[in-house]
Amino acid sequence: MTLAVRYLAARTLDTAPAPSPAPGPGQVEIAPAYVGICGTDLHIFHGDMDARVAAPAVLGHEMSGRIVRVGAQVEGWSPGDAVTVMPLRWDGTCPACRAGHQHICAHLDFIGIDSPGAMQQRWTVPASALVRLPASLPLDLAALVEPTAVAVHDVGRARVQRGERAVVVGGGPVGVLIALVARAAGADVRMVEPSPHRRRRAEELGLAAWDPDTDDVPELVRRWTGDAGADVAFEVSGAPSGVDTAVEVLGVRGRLCLVAIHPRPREVNLHRFFWRELTLVGARLYGRADFERAVALVADGTVPAQRLISRIVPLAEAPLAFEALEDGGDVMKILVDCADDTQAAAV
Amino acid sequence: MTLAVRYLAARTLDTAPAPSPAPGPGQVEIAPAYVGICGTDLHIFHGDMDARVAAPAVLGHEMSGRIVRVGAQVEGWSPGDAVTVMPLRWDGTCPACRAGHQHICAHLDFIGIDSPGAMQQRWTVPASALVRLPASLPLDLAALVEPTAVAVHDVGRARVQRGERAVVVGGGPVGVLIALVARAAGADVRMVEPSPHRRRRAEELGLAAWDPDTDDVPELVRRWTGDAGADVAFEVSGAPSGVDTAVEVLGVRGRLCLVAIHPRPREVNLHRFFWRELTLVGARLYGRADFERAVALVADGTVPAQRLISRIVPLAEAPLAFEALEDGGDVMKILVDCADDTQAAAV
Ligand SMILES: [Zn+2]
Ligand SMILES: [Zn+2]
Repeated sequence: MTLAVRYLAARTLDTAPAPSPAPGPGQVEIAPAYVGICGTDLHIFHGDMDARVAAPAVLGHEMSGRIVRVGAQVEGWSPGDAVTVMPLRWDGTCPACRAGHQHICAHLDFIGIDSPGAMQQRWTVPASALVRLPASLPLDLAALVEPTAVAVHDVGRARVQRGERAVVVGGGPVGVLIALVARAAGADVRMVEPSPHRRRRAEELGLAAWDPDTDDVPELVRRWTGDAGADVAFEVSGAPSGVDTAVEVLGVRGRLCLVAIHPRPREVNLHRFFWRELTLVGARLYGRADFERAVALVADGTVPAQRLISRIVPLAEAPLAFEALEDGGDVMKILVDCADDTQAAAV
Repeated sequence: MTLAVRYLAARTLDTAPAPSPAPGPGQVEIAPAYVGICGTDLHIFHGDMDARVAAPAVLGHEMSGRIVRVGAQVEGWSPGDAVTVMPLRWDGTCPACRAGHQHICAHLDFIGIDSPGAMQQRWTVPASALVRLPASLPLDLAALVEPTAVAVHDVGRARVQRGERAVVVGGGPVGVLIALVARAAGADVRMVEPSPHRRRRAEELGLAAWDPDTDDVPELVRRWTGDAGADVAFEVSGAPSGVDTAVEVLGVRGRLCLVAIHPRPREVNLHRFFWRELTLVGARLYGRADFERAVALVADGTVPAQRLISRIVPLAEAPLAFEALEDGGDVMKILVDCADDTQAAAV
């Protein structure tokens, strides 16, 4: 019998046996190796997404694993192949899909939110969602591919060019990944993050980080840019003050890439958008090209995934890991090791 | 002796004799023919821009006229030439200028606000600001070139493409001009405007206009676009509700061009920007290419300037015209005829 981590209700997870039917036509069955816990998973854990998530629900969409069984009509994939999954299904018929923006499909199925996710020992997905991993890439590091694909998409939406100056507001995992990907694109990057833990971690990765509570960030940006202002800003904090900072640091024709979720409307200095001819661009999820680029960036070490992984816990301890992440603090990315169910008997 | 219309203090204009010194090196002296009164002039009239405008100040920056005298070191221009003026001077050295965005110069001199404007019988400007008018273009119509250049710039910033659907929120002169220029670019256009006078005028120009107070604009846009939403929206109203409407009507990857001045921060539905990957782009003033395109659009009748001119008043009646415009109502564009000072004796 295989195990799954299940969301039952607000602040309640368990591990329980789960069925593993044979994969149907066009499907593959995967043995997930490592699954990252992300901010969206925490939102679900808090009960904030109960209107969307049908409990009991298996969470998890940042993953790596190997194919176990292949269904009918699946070509090019074999048991043992190392894979990650782009966790999106779309209808192919809505206006967004017809315009080529499938990741914004009006009927998007985000696997791991809207349908069962990867935090289990067997997982069946459409073969069309598979992304191949190079044999040289350790599977724990490969669990960082999905959040890296988010960052690749964001940096692409912001059209970051070599030699530009970019400010990343918010130093959590996504912010750090955006900073690393923007740097790989040739940008000079500064981060803004109030947590000393997170600033220290960014600095260990060679990313300079300012404290918005004690540093005069706009003034520091003016000095850094010779009064020109930044070319690009990323709002990854989700805080009203983060929006203000991102708007304020931009120079003439600067671009603000909006990554964070702002559940409520925010006051925005639209006069600055007019006066400096700024651009605000929303960025959500990713496409397949972003995912494949992310595989390359993790595989070649441009994204030092090892240094972003704070801890790896066995499957049976995943519920405790969610509680640890709530405390925030020094934690960056926690992975769940799905193959290791050694603690299961004790739960 | 030549006359000028002068702003003295809030709600106080007069006409008074003004000096007309010989133009210096690089300058030309113009006899303004027609000068339009625009929203910014009204803001100055209301006293809202006293911190920027040094009274007594000669207003006016939407103009046409003929060259009277040419200073030293001016080549290619002769007395009698029909011209309009791009009323911008920049320092050429700030970061914006060096990046090629001279119209956003950190030390921009907007002629008619920051230095004397065109509402007078003789006006000296740098020859570099001149834009040639075709002989076939009547000078009253040519006074519409400057606001048309604003519209050309806005439509360019929004990257309007043939076949796209565009919503213009706000049906004043700039909104109507944007709609006409967007239509000329091949877009299908709808306007949103609460004033019945302005809606009727838009409809007389072949522009369909909805009433935001009684029409369900988002629903009408859904029906119009087959649920896809609009490709482009222009926020020209300056009202908080105008921002909401412009955001709400846009489909996936839609672009919102922010034209209006919003003096205070506005609540913006940033979640929609994220979810639909919308873009907000600020647009301010124009460049020389926009101005030259505007000359062509007015000259070939694409912009039916005649139908946008509500009234032409003699110079001496300009102060009364400002008061008439305050009442709004049925008025679109009022021109001041600078050659006609027949009423001056009566003032
Ligand atoms: Zn779709
Ligand atoms: Zn400049």
